[in-house]
Order: sequence, then structure tokens, then C-alpha cells
Amino acid sequence: MKMISGGVCAAKGFKANGVHCGIKPGTVKKDLAMIVSDVPASAAAVYTTNLVKGAPLLVTKEHIKNGIAQAVICNSGNANTCNADGIEIAEKMSQMVAEAAGVAKDDVVVASTGVIGQPLNLDPIAKGMPELAAGLSYEGNANASAAIMTTDTIPKEAAVEFELGGKTCHLGGMAKGSGMIHPNMATMLVFITTDAAVSPAMLQKALSGDIQKTFNMISVDGDTSTNDMVTLLANGLAGNEEIDKEGEDFRIFMEALNTVTVHLCRMVAGDGEGATKLLECVCTGARTEQDAKTVARGVICSSLLKAAMFGADANWGRVLCAIGYSGADVDVNKVNVRFRSPKGEISVCENGAGVPFSEEKAKEILLEKEIDILIDLNDGSGSATAWGCDLTYDYVKINGDYRS
Amino acid sequence: MKMISGGVCAAKGFKANGVHCGIKPGTVKKDLAMIVSDVPASAAAVYTTNLVKGAPLLVTKEHIKNGIAQAVICNSGNANTCNADGIEIAEKMSQMVAEAAGVAKDDVVVASTGVIGQPLNLDPIAKGMPELAAGLSYEGNANASAAIMTTDTIPKEAAVEFELGGKTCHLGGMAKGSGMIHPNMATMLVFITTDAAVSPAMLQKALSGDIQKTFNMISVDGDTSTNDMVTLLANGLAGNEEIDKEGEDFRIFMEALNTVTVHLCRMVAGDGEGATKLLECVCTGARTEQDAKTVARGVICSSLLKAAMFGADANWGRVLCAIGYSGADVDVNKVNVRFRSPKGEISVCENGAGVPFSEEKAKEILLEKEIDILIDLNDGSGSATAWGCDLTYDYVKINGDYRS
Repeated sequence: MKMISGGVCAAKGFKANGVHCGIKPGTVKKDLAMIVSDVPASAAAVYTTNLVKGAPLLVTKEHIKNGIAQAVICNSGNANTCNADGIEIAEKMSQMVAEAAGVAKDDVVVASTGVIGQPLNLDPIAKGMPELAAGLSYEGNANASAAIMTTDTIPKEAAVEFELGGKTCHLGGMAKGSGMIHPNMATMLVFITTDAAVSPAMLQKALSGDIQKTFNMISVDGDTSTNDMVTLLANGLAGNEEIDKEGEDFRIFMEALNTVTVHLCRMVAGDGEGATKLLECVCTGARTEQDAKTVARGVICSSLLKAAMFGADANWGRVLCAIGYSGADVDVNKVNVRFRSPKGEISVCENGAGVPFSEEKAKEILLEKEIDILIDLNDGSGSATAWGCDLTYDYVKINGDYRS
Repeated sequence: MKMISGGVCAAKGFKANGVHCGIKPGTVKKDLAMIVSDVPASAAAVYTTNLVKGAPLLVTKEHIKNGIAQAVICNSGNANTCNADGIEIAEKMSQMVAEAAGVAKDDVVVASTGVIGQPLNLDPIAKGMPELAAGLSYEGNANASAAIMTTDTIPKEAAVEFELGGKTCHLGGMAKGSGMIHPNMATMLVFITTDAAVSPAMLQKALSGDIQKTFNMISVDGDTSTNDMVTLLANGLAGNEEIDKEGEDFRIFMEALNTVTVHLCRMVAGDGEGATKLLECVCTGARTEQDAKTVARGVICSSLLKAAMFGADANWGRVLCAIGYSGADVDVNKVNVRFRSPKGEISVCENGAGVPFSEEKAKEILLEKEIDILIDLNDGSGSATAWGCDLTYDYVKINGDYRS
């Protein structure tokens, strides 16, 4: 297994592109992305648990209920959510892709991201579609990943190469954050492609299993979006024997998938709106894995701790406080807490009470860009990792004036 | 029932005071408050649900388990939480109060607020105690309410006068916010006194019932503090027949209590750390009262909506989004949303979809200091109100550097 470049085009037979079509007036950024597989692919997806679901999710769910898809269309600048004509608009987008890319309308995954509750005008999309389709290429991943960005400051891509039964396979993806990130059973927009052959059922099983430890374990702001979605397409062009049951091949595939999704998670959390730091909270020694997850998520969701991390303040009391209200079954008198970064590691709390530490050393550690918050509950073998970011002036700035 | 001045001294027979004793080096603000009743009083309290509980809460719980208390001591600047010697320190504080104010040690309510996990030095408290006790007066409420403030920008007091069986009664209180405010079954520090005669059991019933609709319905930042506590002392000096069962007198008492607690709630939420606006979310038409509560709380907890309100941006999609992930049983296609302030009212969403509105008018409404977010779920008769505040640069500033 090795990390490679190429994002959603790392796998054989996937073309992509991204263009500016003008969905949001007054900007010149790319806002329309497409991915097309040379052949129909097994398809799996997970969706937001928000009761308010974007129309594109409902249309995508319908389109891939047979386990097959061949293309992805995604616009930024407008979520096509809470609009009376949302479904109709998403279906029309699919039809445009079908005509432009020569695929079946029902094999199109549709996604939108941006402001909620403003009608999505199809004119710019119709106008941009010919250029989008004409520019599709096996090296188009960077254009596509740029086009799905909203308040993201960096495009997010990751890919790996691995082997299944002697055949070289590839799996890669792209993601967009960076606000309204608090996934639950599904997540922000993530598109993953692979040339491994996997049956639709096993593909869904792989994705549904993986997100429990990856995209469901990140939070930027506690807001679960209406348009969260992760899709995974497997076109089989690597030539491996199709994975249609659990076993060694499935295990290897899950490992490849997890390598890419953890990379994307860290990129999404670290590029949270306004963020200056990536926070990784590792909880060990929990009574159950679920308790560990609850603690790790609770800590990286604490506004107070997030603000303290922005200020490089080793205010570990806020870690204890968040553990205490997280809802996990914890003996607070057994809790140990350490902070770690490339500058070193420091113990700040043992058995639920503070221990003397060098404030100077703590500051040095916490001024780094990536901070690990290590929690040992000393009460079992459950463990989990969650990713988040600090809370900054810029988060407020970005979200105080989003629509304009 | 009429609003009066006097805070915790509005009720007959309650003296109070607040002094600076120097708990937090380098400040001159008042940091030690005391309330003393002329006679032993019925006592009730509710406490944080955080598993990490401040030592003062544990001591208070023990002291009032017989339903009686006569004095309150509260320091700011240090929470006396997550300290190995916390219980011992809180007991010693009680002993000092007993000696200085001439009450039984076991009749002292102890409270602390401030940074977690730093040992609380008793020396300043011992040094300040004589001055604190000597200055106790029936007009000392303002000193006391100033001394419990941490990052609060204004002291928070409210009081009412009402009648029970022909006797004039009084009930008043003070509160401190203003961060780590997301109470659950209890709340931040609130001290309420009354001269009405109420049995300990009915007093607890009144308080436990009231907080479900008041202090449990406010949130500043989603963080449930380790030291939240609301106490209510009733010394009976108004001379009314003791309330020892439900009935008209109990109903009137509950109304008086609710009038004061709602006032305090609005003050705590409106003075949330860094806040520039008070947000009141009124949810009607819910299938159940619990659904209404869940929706109202979900909306005022949304970081994205809070930031939008800071920017006076009528981004109602974030209201719908928060409703959708709140966990309430809601038909999102029936939801109506309006924004209201002293400048007027505007409908922004009907039946789950946007309606055209004047952005100019919306801006005018949202630039006010108090914003009502009115949600009609059109699906039943459950209703609830929650209070919160906007998310601002100053919240980040305050919490990025709290300990220093």
C-alpha cells in the first residue's frame, strides 16, 4: 500500500474535470465538477442524517438504488436544498450530464453544496456543461477538486495503490469541507473512485463500515449539513477477481479505503472554517469503543477547548469538562490527559486532577499546527480517534457573512 | 405580581455582601460573595449533570440534604474543581462562614466559579472574610452580584413582589454566566431567595419544575459546566401560611419564581461571552413539548446560525438545517420561520421552502440587540422557548486566553 497522486483520477478509467460556470454571481472560481467512469461502476453512498435533506441526495439515492453509477456531477455555490423545485432541478442536472457525457441519466450521482434555500438557476450549468464534458481527462482530478470547494482554502485529495490477487489497484478521492461539518452516519461531500472490482453490496458494506471511524469522527462546528454525502464508485478496470464476500481481499480493500478516508478527514478537519490547527483526539482505556468515540467527539466539539487551542492555552480543565458532559460512561477520577505535537508531549492531568507542568513547554507544544489530545480513561480497552480544529476569529468572520 | 429591585435582598431578612479578596492575582474586582438569612430557611438546589462535578457542589448537596440552609458563600476566579483537596477546601470555606456569620457549618451553601484544575488557595478568602461579614446588609445585593461575575459584563439581578394569602411576599435572585453555559438539569450559578414560607419538599419541586423551562433552555456555547448550580432559599419571614402542597398558593409561587428565572435567563444568554445579541427562539406547533424544546435548543445552539445573527444575515437555511439535525420528530415540509425584533417581523420560510422577502427589511430587523426566531412546525400544539446569543470575535478572544 503506498500513497500516490491523482485523487479521483488515480484509479484506471476515471476522467474528471472542473470549470467555472457562474452559479454564484461575482466570483470566478470553478464551481462545477464532473467525474465519469469509462464503464458503469458499482456504486455505494452514505447520506446525512439531517431530516432536511438536499434534493440532490434524494435523486442520487434513487439513481444508485440498483448499485450502479457511471458519473458524478457536483456544483458549489448553491445547495439546492429547501427549494420547492429541488428534485426537478437535480433530475435536469442528471439529464444534462447524460447527454454531455454519454451515460444513462439514472447512472448519475448528483451533489450540490452552498447556500440553502435559494433556487438553483440551471442556466449557468447548462452553459458550462459542454466545456466541462469536453475537458474531461484522466488527469482532471485537480480541476474537479477545485470546483467543489466552498470556503475550503485548499483542495483535498488522497489516493493509494494496493494489490488484490496480484493485480495492481488504485483508490482515490476528493472532499470538500469546511463549515457545517459534524457528520453523523454520513458526511460532507466526498467522492471516491477505485478500479478494484467490488460488488455493490460489498462496496456499500465497506463504505458504511469505514465512515463510522472516519467521517463520522470529525467535527468543525457541530452543525450537521443537509447535503452531506460520501460516494464510492468501483469500475473493476484493475482486473481483480470481484470482491463479493468478506475475506483477505475485502480486508485489503478496507485498508486502502481507510487510508484514503483518514487522509481526507484530517484535511477536512484541519481546513475547517477559519481553522489554524488540526486537533486529533485519541481516547484509549474506555469501557467500550462507543464510550471512546463519545469522549473523543465530545472533546473536539467543545467550543471552549477549541478556543483555548487557538490561544495555545493548555486549559486541560476544559478537556475534563467535555469528557464529563459527553454522555460517556467514565470514571472521572481515573482520567489522564496529555498534549502532544511535533515539539513534544506533556502530561497535564492524572487521575482526574491537575499535575504540575511547565507552562512554557505547554505553550511551545500548542503553538504547532497539529495538536494531539491524548486521553487515557484507564478503565478498559475501548479506543477511538476524532478530528477537529480550533475556533478562531475567522470562523466567525466567514459565517457572519456567508450569503453575501 | 410586579418587578422590583433588590435582587437577593428583595426578600425580607436576607443580607448580602461582596468584596475583593484577591483570589486571582492581578485583579481588583470583587471575587467573594455572601448571602445570609436572619433565620434558617428551607433550601432547594439543582446541580450540573456533568460527571465532573465541582467539589463545592458535592459539599452543598451534603449540607442541604436536610432541606435547610442559612447562608451562601461564593467565590469567583477559581472553580475548585478537579483538585485533589477540593472537598476539604469547600468544607473549610463553610467553617469560615459559620464562624464569621454565626450560622451552623452544615447550613452553608458553597459555590465556586472560575478556572478548573488549579488549587484554590484559602488565604485570600480567610483574609477577606471579616470584611465580608462585617459589611453584610439588607441592601448588599449589588455587591454580591458583582462579586460572582467572571467574564460577565453586567451583574444579573431580578426580583418580584407578590401576594400569598394576603401577605406580601418577595422573591429575587442573582446569576452569573457567561461562558460554559449549556445547562442540563441544572445551570450556571444562580442564587434565589424568598421570604415566602415553603416546605423544603415543595421548594425543591418548584425549582426542579421551573428550570426545565428556564435555565435548561439557554445555551451560550454548548459546554455544560462542572460547577452549575441553582439554589433557592425560603426563610418564611413574609408570614404566609407555609406552602406544603400543590394548590393556588403553589401556583402563584411558581409564577413568581418563573418571572424571576426567565429574567435571569435572558440576562445570562444576552450577556453570553462576547455576545452582541440576545436570541430568543420560540417553537410552536410541535408534536410534543419535548420536540418543541429539542428544536428551540437545537436552533440557538447552532454555531452557524449564531454567527449569521452576529452578521445580521437572514440565513434562514441554517435554521432549517438545525431543526433537521436537532433530533426532534418534525415534518420539515410544514415548517414556517419568521424573524422578529423591535424593528418588525418578516417571514422567510413557509412549508419548508424559502419565500421572497426584502433583504433590506431583514437586515434592519436583525441589526437589533434582541432577535426572536419564530418557528411554527404546524404539526401539533407543543411549544417551548430557548435563549441564546450570537457567536462573535470576542467569544473567541475571551476563550482563547482565559487562564492568563
